[in-house]
Amino acid sequence: MELLKQKILTEGEVFEGNILKVDCFLNHQIDCVFLREAGKEFYRLFKDEGVNKVLTIEASGIAIGAFVAQEFECPLVFAKKSKTKNIKGDVYSAPVDSFTHGTTSDVIVSKRFLGKGDRVLIVDDFLAVGNALNGLISIVEQSGAVVAGCGTVIEKGYQHGGDKLREKGYKVESLAIIEKMNDKTGEIIFRD
Amino acid sequence: MELLKQKILTEGEVFEGNILKVDCFLNHQIDCVFLREAGKEFYRLFKDEGVNKVLTIEASGIAIGAFVAQEFECPLVFAKKSKTKNIKGDVYSAPVDSFTHGTTSDVIVSKRFLGKGDRVLIVDDFLAVGNALNGLISIVEQSGAVVAGCGTVIEKGYQHGGDKLREKGYKVESLAIIEKMNDKTGEIIFRD
Repeated sequence: MELLKQKILTEGEVFEGNILKVDCFLNHQIDCVFLREAGKEFYRLFKDEGVNKVLTIEASGIAIGAFVAQEFECPLVFAKKSKTKNIKGDVYSAPVDSFTHGTTSDVIVSKRFLGKGDRVLIVDDFLAVGNALNGLISIVEQSGAVVAGCGTVIEKGYQHGGDKLREKGYKVESLAIIEKMNDKTGEIIFRD
Repeated sequence: MELLKQKILTEGEVFEGNILKVDCFLNHQIDCVFLREAGKEFYRLFKDEGVNKVLTIEASGIAIGAFVAQEFECPLVFAKKSKTKNIKGDVYSAPVDSFTHGTTSDVIVSKRFLGKGDRVLIVDDFLAVGNALNGLISIVEQSGAVVAGCGTVIEKGYQHGGDKLREKGYKVESLAIIEKMNDKTGEIIFRD
């Protein structure tokens, strides 16, 4: 998605430790005009997959998830990172390591919101080693639903999480795939 | 908002301890077709307030925040509950007690995303005693920005957080205000 590449080049910052900071438009301050276009692009990419539910993970997946679900006119479910007293009864759960926080959380989804017959599009803001997507795929498959595809806004291609999922046969689409970053020069090179 | 009242009556559940569970459409599974309408209603209510930024708090405020920001065609900023290594430099912060989780968190917003000249519409899914709104108001005022108003989807009127803010002069609008709930009968009575 050309608009996204331009935003990454003009607004993104590269830091040591393979960190691409795009919190000015994607995961702290959110450019909703841009994300709406991103939602439309995901609709274009997955419109033939029979999607009836969008699944993401709190917190920074929720905004892109909302704009994707808006296009599909279907519900968004977001996996939660801790059990609150507002979630009663049975949940599906999977452990997810956080690249950003350096922690492992159990993420959970109420069994009421996923099940046989659902075709689920999993979306997230970032794809690196694939921890979040693997956890969400596990939850979808535990429920008997089908993974219709995975869509992420920015994929760090050099961490190969997306490639491993593609090798397993999942349809994974990212709106921009970064092949290489240089924290000394700030250079960012995209995969073609 | 009549559509919301009907959804609360047909899809909401009342539990002991003044808990209204609406996680089937508002804060776990999200009805994005409904939330889009809610975003339009908030635009109608605040369109004359000069709003140039929407502020909410992770996680369940993000979806409604995104749909409100879409209508205003302005950025959404969400306050974060813990410091991650992706947020560099100075932040505004305020302590917020969570009614749902029974914990207190420092919520933070990067200083780069709020400041003088901003007119901020604060939105959230729920308003009870007003902890989250008070924390977000503090952050806006620390930054030198102006609180253009506060909009919440469901207000628990009997916990009086909204009334206290209105007494202080803030424009607070909720799409449904619950005056009374009965966890034995499931009855829900709205404020006129």
